[in-house]
Amino acid sequence: MEATGRGINDGETLGTVAIIGLGLIGGSIGLALRQWRAADRVIGWDTDASTLQAAVVSGALDEGAETTGHCVHGADIVVLAAPVSATISLLHAVKPYLTSDCVVTDVGSTKRRIVEEAEEILPGRFVGGHPMAGSEKSGLIFASPTLFDGAVWALTPSDNTEGTAYETAERLVRLVGAHPHRCSPDDHDRAVAFVSHLPHLLAYGLAQVSGEDVPEELRQLAAGSFRDGTRVAQSDPAFWAEILLDNPGPVLEALGAFASWTDRARKAIEAGDHDTLSALLDEARRARGRFPR
Amino acid sequence: MEATGRGINDGETLGTVAIIGLGLIGGSIGLALRQWRAADRVIGWDTDASTLQAAVVSGALDEGAETTGHCVHGADIVVLAAPVSATISLLHAVKPYLTSDCVVTDVGSTKRRIVEEAEEILPGRFVGGHPMAGSEKSGLIFASPTLFDGAVWALTPSDNTEGTAYETAERLVRLVGAHPHRCSPDDHDRAVAFVSHLPHLLAYGLAQVSGEDVPEELRQLAAGSFRDGTRVAQSDPAFWAEILLDNPGPVLEALGAFASWTDRARKAIEAGDHDTLSALLDEARRARGRFPR
Repeated sequence: MEATGRGINDGETLGTVAIIGLGLIGGSIGLALRQWRAADRVIGWDTDASTLQAAVVSGALDEGAETTGHCVHGADIVVLAAPVSATISLLHAVKPYLTSDCVVTDVGSTKRRIVEEAEEILPGRFVGGHPMAGSEKSGLIFASPTLFDGAVWALTPSDNTEGTAYETAERLVRLVGAHPHRCSPDDHDRAVAFVSHLPHLLAYGLAQVSGEDVPEELRQLAAGSFRDGTRVAQSDPAFWAEILLDNPGPVLEALGAFASWTDRARKAIEAGDHDTLSALLDEARRARGRFPR
Repeated sequence: MEATGRGINDGETLGTVAIIGLGLIGGSIGLALRQWRAADRVIGWDTDASTLQAAVVSGALDEGAETTGHCVHGADIVVLAAPVSATISLLHAVKPYLTSDCVVTDVGSTKRRIVEEAEEILPGRFVGGHPMAGSEKSGLIFASPTLFDGAVWALTPSDNTEGTAYETAERLVRLVGAHPHRCSPDDHDRAVAFVSHLPHLLAYGLAQVSGEDVPEELRQLAAGSFRDGTRVAQSDPAFWAEILLDNPGPVLEALGAFASWTDRARKAIEAGDHDTLSALLDEARRARGRFPR
């Protein structure tokens, strides 16, 4: 048995899966489903016609649809893999074409608002999802059938989500190789503010002040800690501005906690206080050790 | 020809090299010199007798010395590979045993104070050095002959450094596989405050607030951006407290610039201002693009 979820593929497929949005995540879902023959048929739609065509050519889809309505028509599962700002309007757009037991899920980086609004539109059958397997790279060109291998994939049902809808979403997650992790939309949003949104903000900030203040001839001195610390500052800015603005409460809380910590470090440095600074760093190192990887 | 400095090994060796301190850096220098037969003899000393013995057994040294004096006696080059706080007292300790044309270099992460004080002790023959090839891992056990392959290695001569001393240090750097980068101690310290010391502080801070505020059952959601952003928070706290306190001016400047940036981001998030936030992130992404890798 494999360690990843694909081990559970018992031959029963997901039926027809519709993917709206063929970027890094949507494309990788299609590639994984088709590679592992986990769906009878994978059909997709994208705002960009050439991306849609490329998704068919690259094997991420069996078929491209001309409209969102055609795409979801007859589908057993619909995956909304568009930016967070587009998810709700897409759900409105496809709703009239959904079969009565179709399950809809998304892959957005924030969950509270989306789940709340989706619950109004499609009570019980929308299951919020968020694969923790992004990258600073975006677009179908970087899609891979192994993107989700061993990754955690948050699923955030509401109190009204039907049990069978949740099970279907979980099945999709396992079949593309990921580990489902069930939590509430609120818990999700607060946790990712700290472990994903804050790291992105810090990476952008580090890139900005270093790029501004380090003269060109000294930039070569940037090595591993800078590279790792700024990797995700290469992510799409408009996409990330949307995510941060869709989760303002938790993001501001995380930023505030971070500012308090750096303030304590700053004071210890100003005071030349080795014991205090060393203790602060040691406590932080032990906090890092509480995370699984 | 290889791309790394080892390509220039023309058969002329460095003579006898003495390494004081057999941790990750000192051990890797010994392993590289011996693997590439770049020195006639590599002799070492460490505060810890079992580390010294392990350095001989692992092939990082030809020989271990009983005292620092024995270690440097007759050496052509002495490498001080101890924590920054110990460098100057080690230089005092070994000075009486140095031959008249011996060159001394170090590998400390800060350079201004060390170069200034070393210049008083050994005028003209101390060449400050800093390999940009560390790791969150420390100790001889992680040493490798390829640690410096292709890495940049800052060399920070003063106005009084003898030309031949500088050339010797540069030769050592190339022979272990690194690219020497000449700059002043002040320029070095200011640049590394931004591209190394700040990333370390941010990593520790991110680890601390996330470890404190994310409940155990949600820590699985931490993925790539968190792992990369906190990797160096696994570094030795006392060692890093020393480095930060040896470079307070530039580190506080970098922390201040960073706090101003996050303050601008915070205001844009509070205002729900997508255009401003997106422009901030976009500028930061372009700043990241100015760095070589």
